[in-house]
Amino acid sequence: MSANSCDLCQDSLYPILWSNSQFRIILVNDQGLKGYCRLEAIKHIKEISDLPEAVFSQVFNILYIIEKALIFVLRPEKINLASLGNQTPHLHWHIIPRFLDDSFYPNSIWGEKIRDCDQSTTEDEISKIQHFLTTHLHL
Amino acid sequence: MSANSCDLCQDSLYPILWSNSQFRIILVNDQGLKGYCRLEAIKHIKEISDLPEAVFSQVFNILYIIEKALIFVLRPEKINLASLGNQTPHLHWHIIPRFLDDSFYPNSIWGEKIRDCDQSTTEDEISKIQHFLTTHLHL
Repeated sequence: MSANSCDLCQDSLYPILWSNSQFRIILVNDQGLKGYCRLEAIKHIKEISDLPEAVFSQVFNILYIIEKALIFVLRPEKINLASLGNQTPHLHWHIIPRFLDDSFYPNSIWGEKIRDCDQSTTEDEISKIQHFLTTHLHL
Repeated sequence: MSANSCDLCQDSLYPILWSNSQFRIILVNDQGLKGYCRLEAIKHIKEISDLPEAVFSQVFNILYIIEKALIFVLRPEKINLASLGNQTPHLHWHIIPRFLDDSFYPNSIWGEKIRDCDQSTTEDEISKIQHFLTTHLHL
């Protein structure tokens, strides 16, 4: 897939919670999954090991802060982290707070749906997550 | 789930490719997925943000080396990384080399199976992966 035909090389259709010159954090909140975020590389890079070492370490510092923010604000049962990219080979991480009553729990969100549950992220929660991110991310 | 009832707190049923005092890398190779590895914390820890900072950075250095090893030896189409743990909340990462003809591609391995494909990891490939890991991991 070339950068020209890549969805993640376009402007985001989702709200951007934080960004710097290398990455952006967006609020996906698809599939009724409250607080579902994605960390996306700005450049069209395929694997984490393709990143320069200094940028590579940024990825995990950012994931750490996103996980902390989601736990602090939403108190989920578990955090799920994944970098797949089989269909969109442009480096991005899914950060998904999981709840006992969400539509897929305890399956992965790529697995079988267990129940119908639509948990939207409230404006107050979005504001608190964004405040946590901007307070803790200085990259 | 207490540590006593946790599968990952027991001795591994899979071959151990590398270990130190904090982590072990095992060869899962389940579901006919060649080179499928898991990085497991030795201690019963739930989330990456529960780790002390020095140990936290080890996780990502190890993931980086595992990804490099699998790309170097197996030349997969894509690497998938995931830390889910909804059913076994003991910190572990799936590192899955993905191939165009594997059973699930381009779905995640937790998604719908597309075809039947059984790709075992050969002894020669295991030996090369293990050599790469032990050469590059000094933690």
